[in-house]
Amino acid sequence: MFQSFESTAEPQFGAERVAKLREKMAELGIDGFLVPRADEYQGEYVPACAERLAWLTGFTGSAGVVLVMAGQAIVFVDGRYTTQLKEQVDGNVFIGGDLVGEPPHKWLAAHAGPRFRLGIDPWLHTKSEVAKLQQALAGKNGSVTFLGSNLLDEIWDDRPGEPMGAVAIQYAEQAGDLAVDKLRRIAEALPAAGATSVVLTDPSSVAWAFNIRGSDVPHTPHPLARAIIHADGRSELFLDERKTGIEQRAYLGQICEQLASHAFLDRLKAAAADGGSVMLDPDLAPHVLTGIVEEAGGKVVEAGDPVRIPRATKNTAELEGTTRAHLQDGAAMVDFLCWLDRQEPSALTEIDAVKALEAARARVGERMQNPLRDISFDTISGAGENAAIIHYRVTHETNRAFRAGEMFLVDSGGQYVNGTTDITRTVAIGEVPMEQKRFFTLVLKGMIAISTARFPKGTRGVDLDPLARVALWKAGADYGHGTGHGVGSYLSVHEGPQRISRAAMQELLPGMILSNEPGYYRPGAFGIRIENLVYVEEAEMIEGGDRPMLGFETLTFCPIDRRLVVTDLLTDEELRWLNDYHAETRDKLLPLIDNADVVTWLKRATAPLS
Amino acid sequence: MFQSFESTAEPQFGAERVAKLREKMAELGIDGFLVPRADEYQGEYVPACAERLAWLTGFTGSAGVVLVMAGQAIVFVDGRYTTQLKEQVDGNVFIGGDLVGEPPHKWLAAHAGPRFRLGIDPWLHTKSEVAKLQQALAGKNGSVTFLGSNLLDEIWDDRPGEPMGAVAIQYAEQAGDLAVDKLRRIAEALPAAGATSVVLTDPSSVAWAFNIRGSDVPHTPHPLARAIIHADGRSELFLDERKTGIEQRAYLGQICEQLASHAFLDRLKAAAADGGSVMLDPDLAPHVLTGIVEEAGGKVVEAGDPVRIPRATKNTAELEGTTRAHLQDGAAMVDFLCWLDRQEPSALTEIDAVKALEAARARVGERMQNPLRDISFDTISGAGENAAIIHYRVTHETNRAFRAGEMFLVDSGGQYVNGTTDITRTVAIGEVPMEQKRFFTLVLKGMIAISTARFPKGTRGVDLDPLARVALWKAGADYGHGTGHGVGSYLSVHEGPQRISRAAMQELLPGMILSNEPGYYRPGAFGIRIENLVYVEEAEMIEGGDRPMLGFETLTFCPIDRRLVVTDLLTDEELRWLNDYHAETRDKLLPLIDNADVVTWLKRATAPLS
Repeated sequence: MFQSFESTAEPQFGAERVAKLREKMAELGIDGFLVPRADEYQGEYVPACAERLAWLTGFTGSAGVVLVMAGQAIVFVDGRYTTQLKEQVDGNVFIGGDLVGEPPHKWLAAHAGPRFRLGIDPWLHTKSEVAKLQQALAGKNGSVTFLGSNLLDEIWDDRPGEPMGAVAIQYAEQAGDLAVDKLRRIAEALPAAGATSVVLTDPSSVAWAFNIRGSDVPHTPHPLARAIIHADGRSELFLDERKTGIEQRAYLGQICEQLASHAFLDRLKAAAADGGSVMLDPDLAPHVLTGIVEEAGGKVVEAGDPVRIPRATKNTAELEGTTRAHLQDGAAMVDFLCWLDRQEPSALTEIDAVKALEAARARVGERMQNPLRDISFDTISGAGENAAIIHYRVTHETNRAFRAGEMFLVDSGGQYVNGTTDITRTVAIGEVPMEQKRFFTLVLKGMIAISTARFPKGTRGVDLDPLARVALWKAGADYGHGTGHGVGSYLSVHEGPQRISRAAMQELLPGMILSNEPGYYRPGAFGIRIENLVYVEEAEMIEGGDRPMLGFETLTFCPIDRRLVVTDLLTDEELRWLNDYHAETRDKLLPLIDNADVVTWLKRATAPLS
Repeated sequence: MFQSFESTAEPQFGAERVAKLREKMAELGIDGFLVPRADEYQGEYVPACAERLAWLTGFTGSAGVVLVMAGQAIVFVDGRYTTQLKEQVDGNVFIGGDLVGEPPHKWLAAHAGPRFRLGIDPWLHTKSEVAKLQQALAGKNGSVTFLGSNLLDEIWDDRPGEPMGAVAIQYAEQAGDLAVDKLRRIAEALPAAGATSVVLTDPSSVAWAFNIRGSDVPHTPHPLARAIIHADGRSELFLDERKTGIEQRAYLGQICEQLASHAFLDRLKAAAADGGSVMLDPDLAPHVLTGIVEEAGGKVVEAGDPVRIPRATKNTAELEGTTRAHLQDGAAMVDFLCWLDRQEPSALTEIDAVKALEAARARVGERMQNPLRDISFDTISGAGENAAIIHYRVTHETNRAFRAGEMFLVDSGGQYVNGTTDITRTVAIGEVPMEQKRFFTLVLKGMIAISTARFPKGTRGVDLDPLARVALWKAGADYGHGTGHGVGSYLSVHEGPQRISRAAMQELLPGMILSNEPGYYRPGAFGIRIENLVYVEEAEMIEGGDRPMLGFETLTFCPIDRRLVVTDLLTDEELRWLNDYHAETRDKLLPLIDNADVVTWLKRATAPLS
């Protein structure tokens, strides 16, 4: 299994560990110390050796930061995690903070005493973050102190070693473009940006640029590595040799110089020496790098990671690959949903469902000779009221049996060599109350609105987000998350800069893969989310239209539970979309299914509604 | 008439005037000089003495700036005005620039030579603008030079004097709130913002805060005036005594100290002296004020004009007033539209229509004892292909007769003491081609989508803008302007910060008045816009909903041309809205009409469609 159901954190040690940290802080005369969830690579998934926040506090969510001070310790989390935080940390040691409304820099601006000295590890914070912290403390005559070593690491006795996950080549058949060409294009663009070198600090950018994949962290197949690409065409890849075999080293030797991680700083200094201009992304690069470049006599050119847009706009090979990955994943989903329908609810738990789904993905992967490499995130498997917890992770403690008359929400994905999937279905367990079906249908209307959207070039995610909400708004409801996030090609399931949300100012470009996942959550009662992945494409010219338009092509094919649809609430156009989608799902998935029961189930699940 | 149809500019003098300006620039060693359309008050409408851009270039649009250099002179305008610019200026002297894509600061960053010296009049540019210009030139080792006097004013021999328009009191019946209370609340909020004084530089803010209205500029009834409000409760109003009669002076004497305009700088210095903290809006205040405050020993507190949100969120009296103003204005529109329908198209011109509409507003105003004080902007009156020019202003040169088989677009508004109106109707002249009716109906769908929107608190204009476009997008079309702008209460018809557009990040709050005006334009062929004003209100709790919602209440009542509606393209809900709207229009306007022919026309124009 790629997922565990254990609570791995040890909140009982929180008091002792915080006490030790405070001793270190006192020695240095530091008033506050920040321990973020993010690691040196600003990753969403981090290796065990970087699970600092969890080790100190017990909190295991995917975003958060603790501010430890002499008298109090505040764990800042967002709305998804406020309940989980209370359950996971020792309330005598930690209190909760609001990561969105009053993140650390705002908290410090409002509450820090005069001449407050904040200590941070400058490898764990980006330049943009540090600027906010410095600005917040400037008004107090306070300051940010950059520590030479991480105070927490000093007291973490049994800290695991750095991961040495094996690296694989992402062959041209999947990548669609040679690394040598990608690297050349990155290098050629540097002079116009006024830079002589660029540092790639995002492991997904390194993976994309060098056509490699890794296994250092769970669920995201990038290696923890950095790279420097020079305008003169040289590329330096800082990737421990222990992660690569003979074949990978031979391949990399053709396109770059492969160096140990610890060589990075010396090479960065060399790039900066003699007035070198080094491009860094202020939102991604560790703050420490700016100082290193400047001390070495170089100039920092602040600019967005040059890989982000090329990586987000998938080429034909990547789109064809992910299309196949999604059909395979759909076959596994259908296998699972058919199985689910045949179980006695009271004999089935959320964990059983997670295990059955992963087994189905693995089985179909073996059969289709395209193995499941990993799941793309811990499966969210919530029955009844648990479905209302947007990022619910089932553990042995929270696991519960299904009950007839409720809905079950399952949000999951697979990592295949040809693509990353992410799908949510909410299904009926027995006969569900009308009020819940009504909300299911309103969510479906939003999901169809995005699926069928046509929009002019220049449209951003923020412009589409409301379309998914209008039906709920008219019913006096809404949901508290964005409508969609970017998705990589056998890379991160949460990829930027493309997304569909209130804050999504990035223009949508052909080839970008996005999720389309409106929802509705009634805490303590029920939760609904319906999610397909789509990609942006040029739309066919519309008769009578006067400008080129874009639209979405759907990647995900899997039945949407017909039993939950109130057809009276759908317009003719919406109903037609649903029936067409189901017909296409049947046609595409039937050839991939080898089991007569599943065939029967699929035909019934995709029959037209009227 | 409140509008003329003359072309007032004198482009034939452009060459001579630019030559004189260049002499002045050469004397000072200045490489470039900016002449913006905006005046010292950053107003949309400016007095004759501030029509600098028009005097120099001949261009009379409402937005633009010319950059005069030794070798070239570039007039930067937005897409609305590119055609008009070519017609109005001498192409041998001026070339056009792109005010949106490459405004002066971007142009300078891209094209200015090394050590470029840009001269500006620091009264005509805000601090935000100046910061952009300085940043653009910093990369060139160039600089911005603040001139002690405006070079253009020095060569403008027959420059008109400052306007001395009469000021009237806006009585509590209309304002709904006493000025003394408004001023007290502004003063009381200063300490929390870290300020000891605030300067109101926006004449509309001054008008609102002191409950006065003026007549210095066309169409916007604010006086050109500034004010300083102190945390200790004192208020200083810089308003020339010649603008006020005994009654106004007596009123103002109760609530503030009334001072001559030229006393402003001394009082500002006094406010700044001894470490005073003076609040200025960096997007509204002239740049020169920052230097004056700092030289006098004070500190500038940068913050948004504190009047903007209170002014935008109208109180009950203002909403009731504008509701009545809109019914009166609707009665005038109906009078006009009935008259229009009875004319022989070929005997009717665009100018005839403008005159008839203003006459109808004046006549209804007299009858209802609520006179038309002004029009709220120059009426846009475009037949056939002229309707495709978004900000078309008819002149004797462009005026043309109507033709059967085309559409006529009329966008206009009135200033009444109880409210400002703004309405657009597009009507059929004879039998209009089906393709044009189809687009009319698509625009109507967008307009209905905004009218019927329900949305949660926190929703911004940017979140609603796409709802007005979805129907057009699906047809491969769009329109190149925002969906709505804020509107004042007997103040500016273009009021911030509320709006509905791609860039509208201001949260919509109860009481804000906005226009709802989607459109469609096919250059050289036809143009459509349908516009009602609406205001934000708390929506009734919706059964089954889970959170408080906002919605819009419609202010504008006037028939939408039924002859242009393709009912097959409307959903049942949209058709119901249209029929309900027409029924309400009939019920509300019939009591206000005194002419049997108009009654008959109104009944027919508001009959239900099926």
